[in-house]
Amino acid sequence: MSNSFGSRYRFTIFGQSHAPAIGVTVEGLPAGFAPDMEALGAFLARRAPGRGAWSTTRREADAPEFIAGLVDGHTCGAPVTAIIRNTDARSADYDELRRVPRPGHADYTAFVKYGPGRDVAGGGQFSGRLTAPLCIAGGLALQLLAKEGVTVHARVASIGGETDPAAMERLLAEVKAAGDSVGGVIECVCANVPAGLGEPMFGGMENRISQALFAIPAAKGVEFGAGFAVGHMRGSENNDPFYFDGENGAVRTRTNHHGGILGGITSGMPLVFRAAFKPTPSIAIEQDSVDLERGENVKLTVRGRHDPCIVPRAVPCVEAAAAAALYDALLESRC
Amino acid sequence: MSNSFGSRYRFTIFGQSHAPAIGVTVEGLPAGFAPDMEALGAFLARRAPGRGAWSTTRREADAPEFIAGLVDGHTCGAPVTAIIRNTDARSADYDELRRVPRPGHADYTAFVKYGPGRDVAGGGQFSGRLTAPLCIAGGLALQLLAKEGVTVHARVASIGGETDPAAMERLLAEVKAAGDSVGGVIECVCANVPAGLGEPMFGGMENRISQALFAIPAAKGVEFGAGFAVGHMRGSENNDPFYFDGENGAVRTRTNHHGGILGGITSGMPLVFRAAFKPTPSIAIEQDSVDLERGENVKLTVRGRHDPCIVPRAVPCVEAAAAAALYDALLESRC
Amino acid sequence: MSNSFGSRYRFTIFGQSHAPAIGVTVEGLPAGFAPDMEALGAFLARRAPGRGAWSTTRREADAPEFIAGLVDGHTCGAPVTAIIRNTDARSADYDELRRVPRPGHADYTAFVKYGPGRDVAGGGQFSGRLTAPLCIAGGLALQLLAKEGVTVHARVASIGGETDPAAMERLLAEVKAAGDSVGGVIECVCANVPAGLGEPMFGGMENRISQALFAIPAAKGVEFGAGFAVGHMRGSENNDPFYFDGENGAVRTRTNHHGGILGGITSGMPLVFRAAFKPTPSIAIEQDSVDLERGENVKLTVRGRHDPCIVPRAVPCVEAAAAAALYDALLESRC
Amino acid sequence: MSNSFGSRYRFTIFGQSHAPAIGVTVEGLPAGFAPDMEALGAFLARRAPGRGAWSTTRREADAPEFIAGLVDGHTCGAPVTAIIRNTDARSADYDELRRVPRPGHADYTAFVKYGPGRDVAGGGQFSGRLTAPLCIAGGLALQLLAKEGVTVHARVASIGGETDPAAMERLLAEVKAAGDSVGGVIECVCANVPAGLGEPMFGGMENRISQALFAIPAAKGVEFGAGFAVGHMRGSENNDPFYFDGENGAVRTRTNHHGGILGGITSGMPLVFRAAFKPTPSIAIEQDSVDLERGENVKLTVRGRHDPCIVPRAVPCVEAAAAAALYDALLESRC
Repeated sequence: MSNSFGSRYRFTIFGQSHAPAIGVTVEGLPAGFAPDMEALGAFLARRAPGRGAWSTTRREADAPEFIAGLVDGHTCGAPVTAIIRNTDARSADYDELRRVPRPGHADYTAFVKYGPGRDVAGGGQFSGRLTAPLCIAGGLALQLLAKEGVTVHARVASIGGETDPAAMERLLAEVKAAGDSVGGVIECVCANVPAGLGEPMFGGMENRISQALFAIPAAKGVEFGAGFAVGHMRGSENNDPFYFDGENGAVRTRTNHHGGILGGITSGMPLVFRAAFKPTPSIAIEQDSVDLERGENVKLTVRGRHDPCIVPRAVPCVEAAAAAALYDALLESRC
Repeated sequence: MSNSFGSRYRFTIFGQSHAPAIGVTVEGLPAGFAPDMEALGAFLARRAPGRGAWSTTRREADAPEFIAGLVDGHTCGAPVTAIIRNTDARSADYDELRRVPRPGHADYTAFVKYGPGRDVAGGGQFSGRLTAPLCIAGGLALQLLAKEGVTVHARVASIGGETDPAAMERLLAEVKAAGDSVGGVIECVCANVPAGLGEPMFGGMENRISQALFAIPAAKGVEFGAGFAVGHMRGSENNDPFYFDGENGAVRTRTNHHGGILGGITSGMPLVFRAAFKPTPSIAIEQDSVDLERGENVKLTVRGRHDPCIVPRAVPCVEAAAAAALYDALLESRC
Repeated sequence: MSNSFGSRYRFTIFGQSHAPAIGVTVEGLPAGFAPDMEALGAFLARRAPGRGAWSTTRREADAPEFIAGLVDGHTCGAPVTAIIRNTDARSADYDELRRVPRPGHADYTAFVKYGPGRDVAGGGQFSGRLTAPLCIAGGLALQLLAKEGVTVHARVASIGGETDPAAMERLLAEVKAAGDSVGGVIECVCANVPAGLGEPMFGGMENRISQALFAIPAAKGVEFGAGFAVGHMRGSENNDPFYFDGENGAVRTRTNHHGGILGGITSGMPLVFRAAFKPTPSIAIEQDSVDLERGENVKLTVRGRHDPCIVPRAVPCVEAAAAAALYDALLESRC
Repeated sequence: MSNSFGSRYRFTIFGQSHAPAIGVTVEGLPAGFAPDMEALGAFLARRAPGRGAWSTTRREADAPEFIAGLVDGHTCGAPVTAIIRNTDARSADYDELRRVPRPGHADYTAFVKYGPGRDVAGGGQFSGRLTAPLCIAGGLALQLLAKEGVTVHARVASIGGETDPAAMERLLAEVKAAGDSVGGVIECVCANVPAGLGEPMFGGMENRISQALFAIPAAKGVEFGAGFAVGHMRGSENNDPFYFDGENGAVRTRTNHHGGILGGITSGMPLVFRAAFKPTPSIAIEQDSVDLERGENVKLTVRGRHDPCIVPRAVPCVEAAAAAALYDALLESRC
């Protein structure tokens, strides 16, 4: 079903933005594993709102409560469930949105799929807040991958086309002042990935990472290695020559246009991908929309405070998606 | 498992390039459906080699034999299995490749994963030939979607950066003469898609289409709607304003940066995506590689004839992937 | 994974007997459904301990808290998650059991599978308490089936071989006084089941119900329709003759040895099955066991109070298992 | 979907009794494995018709052709597909059955589910012939289990209640002469099964074996260990005392009422189960049925030759089901 990911490292996410809680159940964690709760908290804090100058001012504790699966801080073999209580009250901010969908948001498609009873408060199940449970499952995977020497690091590659941090800051201030928002690109590098993870066809690493990644709201594209640039390249340029690394005798490639994946399977070279995130749909500028109840075209001005750019907060989410896909493939490679 | 795709329209692909056969088993076809075999044959012919000036000269009949699931040309409720016999003999062309992996190809990762006994002939299970069964499953889905009024059309958007057909032809001739290859981009548009298909989180249409698409060898990136361009856009620009279409009262958007998908769910606007395909790894130019048996760096010149560009032949494969994902989501939307 | 059941009506159970909570996430509930919480509470109460004279005296509130998926008491399209807090403190009763597994219990196999860090308290994830979340998922399915006119009723068919209620009572008193336990058989009848549910092969109703049923601890056998008695029967006796029911023109059978299932698919006749439950392994009588730490044979006397017979409390669990399997098949039959 | 079984050792069965072919695709076989084709053939021969005095006289070669997944007789990592051509011609024997369903057979439910276009010839996809591909997948699993020392042996426990072979023979002759059929029970013992296979809840060995077993047509019940007899037993009698086996220090039980499974997980003791099979529905005696076209009650006399008892031929099918479930759980236990 749509809220579950993975085959051997499998998790199921639940909750809506303003439900009593959000959370995740993770199956496939090895028994006897003691999650580093401090490290997990720090990881979750990277995606939490109310931290940076540019993020929404909604404040959340976001401290996960582990209600199942741990005994004295260690996994016992049972699935691990963690929940995060939604402490912010269900506000009236979203009443107009019940009738008038925000352009660029899932408001309208949720109405089509679930009818008028869908949860509109805070975006319901489509809220970016649901990436918190993704980060719990992914954060645990990151810790387990680290034990195998695998690291996963993502970073903001560009915001609004700007790649220089100072220019990004300037742009964000400008966009915020204008009541607008802006998109960006995140790059993720997974290092020390063992060769041989992933499978052919639909089980390739590109397939798996994509399936995890597009669960992050606002993701609109993903590319691996040289990505879309391959469309401009010749084989003689794109093919990465193999060589024996003298130091350890490992087979490596001199370049990494393949992004660490050949035929869906990891090559041992760094796994590299980039994902594009659209600008936050919620902007303060008046927009054209429709009133679904009255059946008429209307103007909409979204109230409340919103991120001018979710890209910085999406960075740990991208790491979480990659880690979940990688650790799942790692477990699979052992059977 | 990795060779299966879909939940309600589910198919399992089998075979290797030089095995006795390749094929596919499709579950979820409605009983009483009479596939248009002529249309299916024409669809398969679009991906078959030996047709265009630029494609490999390997000749295959590629006519699928339906060995199960049909009675008097109609589905009977049982899974449908079609096979295509591999008529070309297992050649000696691939003996060197057993030791020396082609740069940019799955030769090396297959060796890591399956050991020396992997099937190297013709690329084994990693061969582009395995897109034929994908096209059978996708071609049947296309016919079923057409009954619902849904159309899926892909086209070559660019080859080597050229978007003009004449320029593409010139480039292909040049690349072929040089013994090289070149990549490209394919764009796919799915029209008359009902609103409400797909699910949140991991079951979104982006997730599903990506999972299907990256089964096509050489795919290295996918983007939906405005895709990577969203990284440069403002919300006020990217958000697609809603309006009531006077003619039929339907909710539509004035622009389609969202590519027909919001929150993973179809909006009723055309579903649009693009995929990047890398240059064929098999080129006639000498390349650096390794001899996995002797443990030494070597030079490799790939013999045999190969496509200078697989992009034109990948067009129906992209349609097949999209159709399979869409029809699966359509069936799901009914329960 | 092992804690999930179903394809279209899919739920994932989590928790251990003495974890902070147990619970379940249910996907596939139709949007706009208002669960009857009173009816659900009454259903759960039927399996709760501390109610009958013969059940364990452990007291639990067992009132589920719905932390996700409902808005104003109605499903909104998001997965529904309900948890039950474990209010009883983690006791010292189970310390000996960490070393000395109870004969007939999962203590030993949990040790083999998960190591010394497994959760032994209250049976951990193997506790009968985990049937409460099963009953939440099954109880919701029962309500949805009732809307379609389908009813599911189970009853104690026998305890210790006794089929007369008065004789059962007598036997239970005797067994309790002896510090022993006793097994029994439950029969379940699902009426007004539409013909055509279930699928051939591994997706048959027998396959699905079995898969759900053996999640109830202590279940050791299941039989459908005439069940094991078919081993003694002739075809002329076992075959159920078809006839047109004059009243409504429906096809029915004069007998129901097939138990409402032919070829895995429901026939429209009542779906009937029976399940055998073993005696509670926890008995007050001294037993032979092993000390896993010290590596020696020991005597074990299980302390604490335990049900002399869990069969009466398993009745709603059997209904829950049947309802979950039926409703899942019903949803599937619509795509 | 319903024609697939397993998670890590996963296979998909296709075909109908009179389709051009039946077959199976198996994923999860280790690369480099050389199936013993002679042993597989001998295994398949045990379920083939036309061998014993009591089985149908339909003759089939039943020699599987491996069309994918093998290179020089060894698995190469790709899925393995084997097909068996149906050499018997589609006969006119089944024309009446299109209108008049056989009592006790899937004829009627197939009509309800798939409509008049269902495949009635030879029972279509519900034919016992579809156990041949099950035996291919299970036969390969048996060979892989044997490498781990695990053996799976089933035998006819009773036919028509008779447990003595001479009495069974007498009964079968009598039943055949009467144009009738008779049911029976098969017992299966899996020895040297490692402790720790299977998972809690829905992933227990009982759940898995049941799910595989009920794919065999005519199976109506399954019981593990003491099975339905537990309903008559006391805990003090049913609980199997643990002890350290002096010879190898292993934990064993003095009795095996638990049938080698505790909490869904193997204990290391022999895994024992029994399955009940109903009498073949196709009998020569006149029966009551309905004419689905004309809407009237009719008499039916099934023509053609049929087994008076399928129990002996079901023995290898039971072994196949058990082996598939066990090997799948074995692979899972490694991740």
